[in-house]
Amino acid sequence: MDPAKLLDILGNENRRKIIQLLANRPCYVSEISGRLGVGPKAIISHLSLLEQAGLIECSVDEQRRKYFNIVNSMRLEVSMSPYAYTVVLHDIAFDREKKGDIPVAEKKETLAREESSIFFLKLNSRLQELKTRQEELAQMQQQLQTEYTELMGGCLDSIEGVAENPVECELLFELLKNESTLAALCYNLRLHPSIVNASLTDLAKRGFIEYSVKNNQHYWKICETGVETE
Amino acid sequence: MDPAKLLDILGNENRRKIIQLLANRPCYVSEISGRLGVGPKAIISHLSLLEQAGLIECSVDEQRRKYFNIVNSMRLEVSMSPYAYTVVLHDIAFDREKKGDIPVAEKKETLAREESSIFFLKLNSRLQELKTRQEELAQMQQQLQTEYTELMGGCLDSIEGVAENPVECELLFELLKNESTLAALCYNLRLHPSIVNASLTDLAKRGFIEYSVKNNQHYWKICETGVETE
Repeated sequence: MDPAKLLDILGNENRRKIIQLLANRPCYVSEISGRLGVGPKAIISHLSLLEQAGLIECSVDEQRRKYFNIVNSMRLEVSMSPYAYTVVLHDIAFDREKKGDIPVAEKKETLAREESSIFFLKLNSRLQELKTRQEELAQMQQQLQTEYTELMGGCLDSIEGVAENPVECELLFELLKNESTLAALCYNLRLHPSIVNASLTDLAKRGFIEYSVKNNQHYWKICETGVETE
Repeated sequence: MDPAKLLDILGNENRRKIIQLLANRPCYVSEISGRLGVGPKAIISHLSLLEQAGLIECSVDEQRRKYFNIVNSMRLEVSMSPYAYTVVLHDIAFDREKKGDIPVAEKKETLAREESSIFFLKLNSRLQELKTRQEELAQMQQQLQTEYTELMGGCLDSIEGVAENPVECELLFELLKNESTLAALCYNLRLHPSIVNASLTDLAKRGFIEYSVKNNQHYWKICETGVETE
């Protein structure tokens, strides 16, 4: 799924509320309409949008009533700072048939009541562990982003001591963020290839940048070799 | 900042493009308008919305032209699965004056050209390390979410072997997701307190759930004690 599409979907408050409800349990249109205080017509139009996007699916119960549930598992990460804006959508592939670590042969029908109780409690403990671990990871990511943003500020300052003219400044700043091709640099900075090329050659001679070849393209990046980090 | 507010903002393609441009470098209205092929009036209205939300700020250059730049650093995480929908917004506090690990006394003016070159390359190396680490963390989080979703499926199956009636099923499912109060359970499940209370008492007697007291409230959760996880 295109992350932009998901952001468009999540940009509507009622659609967010619908997703929230369905993440709790599968729901009928009438339930959603009642809970949100929004007419069924509007709900149906949101639901079909979500269905088309592949986020939810529709099933029919014994009384032939339609209900909706979430099909996918995904994680959207948006990070924004004075130096970067990134949107990443991870599709979490999960095997719907794989139920925890229960052996396939051991079906739940064959589990005695006591066994399934112990099994349930074990699964729950593991679930809580995973939650804790998830929070830890989120915290680590936050710390990383803080350090990244501060460091980027430091780099910007020190570029001034390295670059000999404004074009070099711009090039080093671009390359700090990402390795890049000549064409991408010209496009992003709106500079003529001859100017960019001359500056790149000069910066490379002075030992600040280097290139590597990938898929027959030259990618320029800040030198990493020979510099020890503490 | 309210995560819902941020999702509303990101729900518009042109606003996303503006943020993308500003994350690259501070921009004038005319630049943004030209790059996006959108009239300045519309751009100005998006910019003032972003400014009101505290995402960007406006400054004036030497020629008295207004330019805009991103002020905050933040991370938005949305995760969605058949069993959960969570939106978390981390505000990344960073100290704009803190530039990498440069000592405060050691101002860039005092750095010799050679020193600042080495310093720049060092900062860049650290920056690349942080990027790699960030990708590793994102991958770990993805794996966690996969395991979580699969495990949740397993738990749902084993609830059937534990619960003695539909109300117990619903209660155990709610508590698997989060510890909860009697009031929240009644509200979410639309069940009368007397019914919920009776079931909770019974489940507690059978050793499946327990409560703890926080802020004078009883929070019910699935028992974790005495069960060893592998």
